[in-house]
Amino acid sequence: MICPSSTRAFFAVTFSCHNRPGIVAAVSTRLFDLGANIIEAQQFDETASTQFFMRIVFDIADAPAVQEQVRTALESLSEIFGLRWSLVDLRKRPKVLFLVSRFDHCLVDLLYRWRIDELPIDPVGIISNHPAETYANIDFHGIPFHYFPVTKDTKAEQERKIRDVMVATGTQLVVLARYMQILSNEMAAYLSGNCINIHHSFLPGFKGARPYHQAFERGVKLIGATAHYVTSDLDEGPIIEQDVERISHIDTPDDLIRKGRDIERRVLARAVRYHIEHRTVMNGNKTIVFVS
Amino acid sequence: MICPSSTRAFFAVTFSCHNRPGIVAAVSTRLFDLGANIIEAQQFDETASTQFFMRIVFDIADAPAVQEQVRTALESLSEIFGLRWSLVDLRKRPKVLFLVSRFDHCLVDLLYRWRIDELPIDPVGIISNHPAETYANIDFHGIPFHYFPVTKDTKAEQERKIRDVMVATGTQLVVLARYMQILSNEMAAYLSGNCINIHHSFLPGFKGARPYHQAFERGVKLIGATAHYVTSDLDEGPIIEQDVERISHIDTPDDLIRKGRDIERRVLARAVRYHIEHRTVMNGNKTIVFVS
Amino acid sequence: MICPSSTRAFFAVTFSCHNRPGIVAAVSTRLFDLGANIIEAQQFDETASTQFFMRIVFDIADAPAVQEQVRTALESLSEIFGLRWSLVDLRKRPKVLFLVSRFDHCLVDLLYRWRIDELPIDPVGIISNHPAETYANIDFHGIPFHYFPVTKDTKAEQERKIRDVMVATGTQLVVLARYMQILSNEMAAYLSGNCINIHHSFLPGFKGARPYHQAFERGVKLIGATAHYVTSDLDEGPIIEQDVERISHIDTPDDLIRKGRDIERRVLARAVRYHIEHRTVMNGNKTIVFVS
Amino acid sequence: MICPSSTRAFFAVTFSCHNRPGIVAAVSTRLFDLGANIIEAQQFDETASTQFFMRIVFDIADAPAVQEQVRTALESLSEIFGLRWSLVDLRKRPKVLFLVSRFDHCLVDLLYRWRIDELPIDPVGIISNHPAETYANIDFHGIPFHYFPVTKDTKAEQERKIRDVMVATGTQLVVLARYMQILSNEMAAYLSGNCINIHHSFLPGFKGARPYHQAFERGVKLIGATAHYVTSDLDEGPIIEQDVERISHIDTPDDLIRKGRDIERRVLARAVRYHIEHRTVMNGNKTIVFVS
Repeated sequence: MICPSSTRAFFAVTFSCHNRPGIVAAVSTRLFDLGANIIEAQQFDETASTQFFMRIVFDIADAPAVQEQVRTALESLSEIFGLRWSLVDLRKRPKVLFLVSRFDHCLVDLLYRWRIDELPIDPVGIISNHPAETYANIDFHGIPFHYFPVTKDTKAEQERKIRDVMVATGTQLVVLARYMQILSNEMAAYLSGNCINIHHSFLPGFKGARPYHQAFERGVKLIGATAHYVTSDLDEGPIIEQDVERISHIDTPDDLIRKGRDIERRVLARAVRYHIEHRTVMNGNKTIVFVS
Repeated sequence: MICPSSTRAFFAVTFSCHNRPGIVAAVSTRLFDLGANIIEAQQFDETASTQFFMRIVFDIADAPAVQEQVRTALESLSEIFGLRWSLVDLRKRPKVLFLVSRFDHCLVDLLYRWRIDELPIDPVGIISNHPAETYANIDFHGIPFHYFPVTKDTKAEQERKIRDVMVATGTQLVVLARYMQILSNEMAAYLSGNCINIHHSFLPGFKGARPYHQAFERGVKLIGATAHYVTSDLDEGPIIEQDVERISHIDTPDDLIRKGRDIERRVLARAVRYHIEHRTVMNGNKTIVFVS
Repeated sequence: MICPSSTRAFFAVTFSCHNRPGIVAAVSTRLFDLGANIIEAQQFDETASTQFFMRIVFDIADAPAVQEQVRTALESLSEIFGLRWSLVDLRKRPKVLFLVSRFDHCLVDLLYRWRIDELPIDPVGIISNHPAETYANIDFHGIPFHYFPVTKDTKAEQERKIRDVMVATGTQLVVLARYMQILSNEMAAYLSGNCINIHHSFLPGFKGARPYHQAFERGVKLIGATAHYVTSDLDEGPIIEQDVERISHIDTPDDLIRKGRDIERRVLARAVRYHIEHRTVMNGNKTIVFVS
Repeated sequence: MICPSSTRAFFAVTFSCHNRPGIVAAVSTRLFDLGANIIEAQQFDETASTQFFMRIVFDIADAPAVQEQVRTALESLSEIFGLRWSLVDLRKRPKVLFLVSRFDHCLVDLLYRWRIDELPIDPVGIISNHPAETYANIDFHGIPFHYFPVTKDTKAEQERKIRDVMVATGTQLVVLARYMQILSNEMAAYLSGNCINIHHSFLPGFKGARPYHQAFERGVKLIGATAHYVTSDLDEGPIIEQDVERISHIDTPDDLIRKGRDIERRVLARAVRYHIEHRTVMNGNKTIVFVS
């Protein structure tokens, strides 16, 4: 959606506050005064909570001083309106860490999208609870791979090792690309807001283990997948994206798993895209996704 | 799908049995010997249960004696293969009774499809727990309307009155067209297999009351509706058809209700169509739907 | 999406202009200065044409003088930025005229949505080239019905009569609800931008007559419908909304027509909704639809 | 859908003929007499042409003599009913040759599905009009790669080289996985029925070059992809599968190309699956696809 130019910097800012007249005018005027040109803007008024949410994409002079002025402006607006804001430089690729288990279709898909430059990310590592040979057929393109096996007893230690990798690499987003280990509450809380999981069901239906087998048993006529932010509440995190496909009585659990792979990988890829384009704002147990 | 001719009768038979070689050959040979021409045929082998299910549509001489021979043939096959079978005359319109509450969109839609001859049914009555004036704007085209109010204390009596109407009219299918009363276990058991309900959620998500409000609270990105056979297990009956539509954070519960009306009416209409074309076979808590 | 209050007026303004920095700031500041509260705002930068498009919904004091000031402000912005703008009072129901031929499913559907207050419109007339008895089963709720038969020779006169009804009733939107007559170029130009047509195919596939038969002949696996603004270019008007459903080799042309009815009515209803909520801006042969 | 056992062979037969009573009985009786067990069966009566089409999957003794008897039986039925039939051994992986140009998303996707054993095929070669280094990032797993550059003047020779590879490898199916060269009429005729192409539009809309740019210019609200059998009639071959995704005015041609990649690869993968499971029968310019 954005056409980068060599002489301008591109930023996306999201913010939220208690709604009151004048916010849009104040923010857009400050940005204009700093020489910014608004390229995209979407807002959302949540009537029930009287909260206001906005996303603005703008270009501006590619100079650190100017960008510092933007931060100062947002800070001062924050004082006036009680704004909570988040600014990202859209030219910088976020550092992404992948966690994966045996099934590699989501990982392979995300790496492909990165390789052809569809997803502008900077992969800093792949962590699995399975050894490297599990992925012998995948070209990791030099992304460091870490084999961190885990048992009930070693979960705390294994999660500490994951956090160490995050810190060492400056990870900004963790993607659970069919990582089949349940995170501890501490780890989930640590990752909260910076970690996207793909669940292989149309939540809230079929939580927990083996959702395709649950779907088969229940006899549903559509199956789905759900990408959500990880919070300490397992399978209850804010939903970013969902999709479904039609099935019928002839589909076995294996057919559901096969059809589900296609849904999972496109749902997860969309969610990651929304996140890195700074289109998402967590709002309690929901996600606002500014898609158009 | 069927082109009726004036000189031939049209039947659909569904049957199921323990799978073993020779069933298709035996059934198709008997039908051929009786002068039947098979127009549609679908079968399904449920590997896990080793059960075999089949639907055959055929035309045959329009003579009662011949048709009696078909029944006799099916009965004899039943003895050989342990066949459970069900034969319907596709030229006879099934007698349908509608139960409805305040929201009339599903009822209006089904009546429209009946009026333009899209749904070949014979509506024998409309029962509501709301008075006739609730539907002042709807032309019932002479279909008898019954106002059967219900309270906790009068439920048993009210359900008896519904059964009386069913018996008096020879009702073959009851459609709960957004009938917002919970049936007693006795009534649900009485209706089992001959009653289709539309639930305004993508089951098994959001059971019970106010599913669109539940969906809003959970922040899902798709809403749906589910048509299922009524069994004594509330919201757990065998699913016939489901569909979904995309929503976003800007949709209020009222928007979900609005979008949901469109999903509900098309899902219910499809389920009724499948039933009256004898495309469905209940299989435990699932429904086999032979759609192509 | 809007919660009307008794003491505030609700307006939607759409505008477009050559893009340059400061537009959002200028518009939002003017509205703020006049006591407006912005409820929804979406913008779109068309990079190729460097055109800027925006839709703003706001509430404001329910006083004619204040609203006149809004118009004056927009007029002055128009001079500065070359703004083309369009302001509508969202509490006023637009006067809608329906044109229909033999098939009534779209008309019946729109009237239903109006009756249950899903579509806040003011139907001012129904015109058909078929006599009133064609619609004997429909309750028009007192909406004036006009039977204007048409032949090749009388088309000019018949269209004049339609325009007379439009003028007499103050029609603001004409909906061609499966009106199967080709408009003259003059009539199409007269209606341009204020008339929505539903075409029973997924345009640009299957233009012209009998699109479902064309789709059947071609063997497509999905059929669709297209709602578009009428322009003098038949079947080439700016598309507002499209949708599809899956079909298979077993579907006859009659099945396609049946499935198509469901697609047509929901696509047309969505398009009418987008129009009356002032979500659409015609942009050459395309339509910008601000849906979220 | 099939659970192979070590002691039984699995076959799929498709056949078609002029419809008349007794076909199903005759075929199923012959198969039963030979010890076959019918696992799946679907039939289709094309009323207009009075043609009959059927697909039967059966298991049978894993003995060449028995299988020869099946062929003999089909041959004798062919004489009685004028049957055109095609029998495939579902345990044998068909030899597949891929043709590709610069964009590799469909190729990479199909190879992935092959690698995880989702698609039971035997890839015998990859031919491109671009050199091997174009695909430096793809692990071809030892599948022979052929660089056959092509110009207007060398097309005949290049196509001869492709045919040579087909003959040398015993290719049974050619997949044009975004192969961007127009085949000569001779080559298209040579491949007819054994070659699947993916076209990046919802045919018949947007034939020819740059369909996503055409879709962008036309302002459609959904884009799609079409998998079809190659015949000598470019972009007019029998359609096997189609799918679509929603777009909006904010999507640039690059966004359409990105979204299209996801549609193309899943549509092509489904079509290849239908073909190798022997679910398809070409019927003039249409394809019958027995999917359930």
